[in-house]
Amino acid sequence: MRPLTAPLSPLVIENVKPCVDDGKFPIKRVVGDTLTVTATIFRDGHAKIVPLLKYKEKCTDQAWIEVEMVSINPGLDLWQGSFKLEKNTRYLYTIEAFTDIYYSWLVDATKKFDAGQDIPSDLLEGQQHLEETLDRLEENDYLSQTLAMLSTAESQAGQMAIFSEQRLKDFMKEHSARKDAATFEPTLEVIVDRLQARYSAWYEMFPRSQGTVPGQSGTFADCKARLPEIKRMGFDVIYLPPIHPIGVTNRKGRNNSLVAGPNDPGSPWAIGSEHGGHKAVEPSLGTLEDFMDFEQACRQMGMEVALDFALNCSPDHPYLKDHPEWFLKRPDGTIKYSENPPKKYEDIHSFDYEAPNGAWKALWEELKDVLLFWAERGVRIFRVDNPHTKSIPFWEWVIAEVQDSYPDTIFLAEAFTRPAVMKRLGKIGFTQSYTYFTWRNFKREIIEYLTELTQAEMKEYYRGNFFANTPDILPEILQVGRRPAFKMRFALAATLSSVYGIYSSYELGEAAAIEGKEEYLNSEKYEIKVWDWDRPGNIKDYIALINKIRRENPALHLYDNLKFHEAASENVLFYSKATPDQSNIILAVVNLNPFSTQQARLDIPIDQFKIGPDDPYRLHNLITGESHLCRGREFFVTLDPHKDPAYIFRLGRWLHTEEGFDYFGM
Amino acid sequence: MRPLTAPLSPLVIENVKPCVDDGKFPIKRVVGDTLTVTATIFRDGHAKIVPLLKYKEKCTDQAWIEVEMVSINPGLDLWQGSFKLEKNTRYLYTIEAFTDIYYSWLVDATKKFDAGQDIPSDLLEGQQHLEETLDRLEENDYLSQTLAMLSTAESQAGQMAIFSEQRLKDFMKEHSARKDAATFEPTLEVIVDRLQARYSAWYEMFPRSQGTVPGQSGTFADCKARLPEIKRMGFDVIYLPPIHPIGVTNRKGRNNSLVAGPNDPGSPWAIGSEHGGHKAVEPSLGTLEDFMDFEQACRQMGMEVALDFALNCSPDHPYLKDHPEWFLKRPDGTIKYSENPPKKYEDIHSFDYEAPNGAWKALWEELKDVLLFWAERGVRIFRVDNPHTKSIPFWEWVIAEVQDSYPDTIFLAEAFTRPAVMKRLGKIGFTQSYTYFTWRNFKREIIEYLTELTQAEMKEYYRGNFFANTPDILPEILQVGRRPAFKMRFALAATLSSVYGIYSSYELGEAAAIEGKEEYLNSEKYEIKVWDWDRPGNIKDYIALINKIRRENPALHLYDNLKFHEAASENVLFYSKATPDQSNIILAVVNLNPFSTQQARLDIPIDQFKIGPDDPYRLHNLITGESHLCRGREFFVTLDPHKDPAYIFRLGRWLHTEEGFDYFGM
Repeated sequence: MRPLTAPLSPLVIENVKPCVDDGKFPIKRVVGDTLTVTATIFRDGHAKIVPLLKYKEKCTDQAWIEVEMVSINPGLDLWQGSFKLEKNTRYLYTIEAFTDIYYSWLVDATKKFDAGQDIPSDLLEGQQHLEETLDRLEENDYLSQTLAMLSTAESQAGQMAIFSEQRLKDFMKEHSARKDAATFEPTLEVIVDRLQARYSAWYEMFPRSQGTVPGQSGTFADCKARLPEIKRMGFDVIYLPPIHPIGVTNRKGRNNSLVAGPNDPGSPWAIGSEHGGHKAVEPSLGTLEDFMDFEQACRQMGMEVALDFALNCSPDHPYLKDHPEWFLKRPDGTIKYSENPPKKYEDIHSFDYEAPNGAWKALWEELKDVLLFWAERGVRIFRVDNPHTKSIPFWEWVIAEVQDSYPDTIFLAEAFTRPAVMKRLGKIGFTQSYTYFTWRNFKREIIEYLTELTQAEMKEYYRGNFFANTPDILPEILQVGRRPAFKMRFALAATLSSVYGIYSSYELGEAAAIEGKEEYLNSEKYEIKVWDWDRPGNIKDYIALINKIRRENPALHLYDNLKFHEAASENVLFYSKATPDQSNIILAVVNLNPFSTQQARLDIPIDQFKIGPDDPYRLHNLITGESHLCRGREFFVTLDPHKDPAYIFRLGRWLHTEEGFDYFGM
Repeated sequence: MRPLTAPLSPLVIENVKPCVDDGKFPIKRVVGDTLTVTATIFRDGHAKIVPLLKYKEKCTDQAWIEVEMVSINPGLDLWQGSFKLEKNTRYLYTIEAFTDIYYSWLVDATKKFDAGQDIPSDLLEGQQHLEETLDRLEENDYLSQTLAMLSTAESQAGQMAIFSEQRLKDFMKEHSARKDAATFEPTLEVIVDRLQARYSAWYEMFPRSQGTVPGQSGTFADCKARLPEIKRMGFDVIYLPPIHPIGVTNRKGRNNSLVAGPNDPGSPWAIGSEHGGHKAVEPSLGTLEDFMDFEQACRQMGMEVALDFALNCSPDHPYLKDHPEWFLKRPDGTIKYSENPPKKYEDIHSFDYEAPNGAWKALWEELKDVLLFWAERGVRIFRVDNPHTKSIPFWEWVIAEVQDSYPDTIFLAEAFTRPAVMKRLGKIGFTQSYTYFTWRNFKREIIEYLTELTQAEMKEYYRGNFFANTPDILPEILQVGRRPAFKMRFALAATLSSVYGIYSSYELGEAAAIEGKEEYLNSEKYEIKVWDWDRPGNIKDYIALINKIRRENPALHLYDNLKFHEAASENVLFYSKATPDQSNIILAVVNLNPFSTQQARLDIPIDQFKIGPDDPYRLHNLITGESHLCRGREFFVTLDPHKDPAYIFRLGRWLHTEEGFDYFGM
């Protein structure tokens, strides 16, 4: 027997969007975004309803702010409401709906009156609604006056005119008793990040390879010296692999050899030595002060530093001695090194995130403290190393904890693993994630993958940071396609996603790989390098041009506005990005084949931009500087990979005035 | 600060299917179905997991029954499990997953051993796993013996052989400590109906029109006399509009006129008179005993009665006098009649499902009591009149309450309204629902709508009962298309859905409509009729043939196995239904144009039936009796609407044996 306590609300609120896994996880937006929420909302019978979108900042005592929703499709019971996300924090939002008794009555009474029926009883009901409201408010001049006017109205028409006044309808809605009120559950959450979470260009570099003397470690001072050049290329974020002291015991040698030579510096990911652990700086790079000086210098130039957060400990990490309880042990009580059987990683040890007897709690707190240590020193971006091999519940906890103190903190998940795991890391809080973009080279697979990333549910919680290469991945297309491929893949990364990155030496076209692998030969991971940053064949000017185009075109600052269009060639990818108001429209067309010139007929989606088949418009090629006056859907391109593997057009409308062109943003 | 109490499970269980609105509502199946559940299940790191599908009957103290799930796509972390639904009741199901410590250890140890590594520490760990399990079990001969064998094993190879035995792996899984165990929430529910909920053919008739004397009400005895004929046509359910006493006050006259003549019987939906209300029988039809006699007669012939559950009260219903508190009132205290302004329904009054001062509770209990009253008398199917204009929370409560006592009760929702409301009624418990099929006539719209109904999420909770006509709807296609249209629409209803119905006189091709409307002229709703059930031009034999084909072909007993295929004509609809094991495959092709013969080339989807391009197969035309020996995908049909607007083929495979044909089920 089901207990009959109070009648349930007849109002239904369902199909609320955006929403991840039915509200189990927050969606993500950036400051300044308008959040538009839609839902299917209805009740049984014919009564009118009022749905309200409600929101407030999380973790405050703030009252809910209410926005009335509007019906956008009555046949489908679809409603919509919006509000602006002003602050870099987490907001809660939900929907409340109730029956609008007064308006329901008014609609019915009006229909009867208009049909010529005598409605004395209905008019009495209307009066009762007003009286009940007045009782509830205890005192209200406007309502008292309205009731007085009603009592002196000489005809049913006169009364209906009073009942129908817009001011009265609004008043009655505002002071509604909210009969049948239902609220959507669970309460939904949106993480509002700062803009850089969605829009930034990353440059990854090993500090020790920024020096000029072969065999000698570069320092933070050397890094600082490179800033003007990196700034000129147009990057926003400088991401450094771990800068902490590197272990000596079982240190890896060049090309990942098991035994290090006397001058081999070791992998920066084998963290911890007599000089300290995750809160210390590798002495050969400089001091903590040197790092902070470098960080400040970046900031002054409008860039910022991202640090690597790698939860590995070398055998020499102080934690091993001070907190052996945080590590996995063998039956004989010794600490295990990391392994992926049969592979052994004898230079590092992994934490036990479920360390027994409550030891895991102190471990989690200490790791949070490491993040806070660097956040206090100005670092607000962390690239997290292999988060999928650590504890997912730990990430969910620590990201929320750090963002409580520093909501501007950005976490990038470096997880290249199975899709379900990568998605989960996005859902539980990672601000950005690595993607399979690095391996998607062909037209169909790019369209399929990018459509999933940017047009389906993933766009709500997963921000793909498109890396064209990483210290671990020198993609085959770059190895074989060389300079044209480096340009082509750069153009793709920088225009397909609003957030992307390269690992240094990309700008030099460095393509020396270990035979048969997508790995760098003589990788910086295991040795100090000295680079000629102006080496012939570099693509630094090309990078600077494309980053300039990104900066100047707001359409490229958005992530989920990517649309693919028809290009009559399997080697040519054609897509657009536009701002929601279409004041900035970018069309990009890329030759995916680095070996030969491709021609293609493009189908310009003029209807999507409200350009008629006979309206003229202008395509301004931001790569070549040329302009084309166009009409209709057809446009032909020829893309020589050695010259320009990609064209980026800004579409300008043609205004029929003497002044001529009006193209936006120029 | 988030409290750190116990580490959360690293196991993730998500994307569980089937599941309606993330588990807010039950799915539906019928007795004998196998429920197959899939889910994305994984954990961080590399450890092996064991997911279990768990189920039990709801409302019992039964323990969970566990079925181990199998990995069906490791890359996507997709797992699957199944169990058979044996009883007509509600089951609960969920998924539990845990880390398989022993097997995880074994996989890693094996990899190391196979790579030639010396693994004494790993072997010690394996032994510890066994010892811990033995401690937990306190006593176990098998495990003690295994440990003894291990201690005497002379080599690492010998120990690994013991550790790797299948029996030990199974034992360790079965007796696992279930580390990290996580259970999917919310617990999911499946309503397991009896077969008739999904597979039945309905025949609707007004008892008072089953007589033979003009102007004189037919009786239950007359109804009984018609049973052999209805049985011969092949129907399973005889659905009667309300059989209760009809009100006199404000009774509607013929063709819905406002004033009834002295001999007008009134609308059966205006329930209640001095002879009683919803638990009484209209005297002109007979007594309650007469009804029960009729009900028994149906049952003996393998058919059953469905009653109408219409929550309207005529002004003469005893409830108005006995329970005025259950109705909506005017300001002067009188009871309101029903209305849809400016339309008035002065012959009926609606209940107030939120009647104040707790009166609604007694109302809800009384209405439940009405259903139980008829259920006790053998009626287990209710067609609910306009449920969307009543209270949705009431339906959710009362359906569950009645099915607790009579799980074999079927509720059909007669809601023709907006899609969101119709879907909701299915979600909250209605066994079957009316659909827009009645108005879908053209190829594209049929394919689109039926695909949504049978192939998308709706199939889990919404069973469309396809009525070709109703007392309220005489579709335009029947009015203009006449006999060919009646045959065509019947064939569609009976083969597109496993559950369908007609309203009597359909078999006679009755098409007299009110000018310009889809309504019957001289509707039975307001007058007594006498029919010539053998009137020339009737399609009774056609109906009997198609119902026979339905009975003999299990593919037509299923609802969500509908697939559309290519027919090279906009007027020809081509679709198939097959049993999951493909032992019964039905292809149907229908000329949607009742005015002219259509020809079309069909694209037989032989690949879906695992028939190669060169394999012969047979199409047996169950309408004409002809057979065709075929090869390849092309097949041409000519459909003369005056002769056969539809062909229904059974596809028979060709076995390369001397015996020749083996087509299934014949």
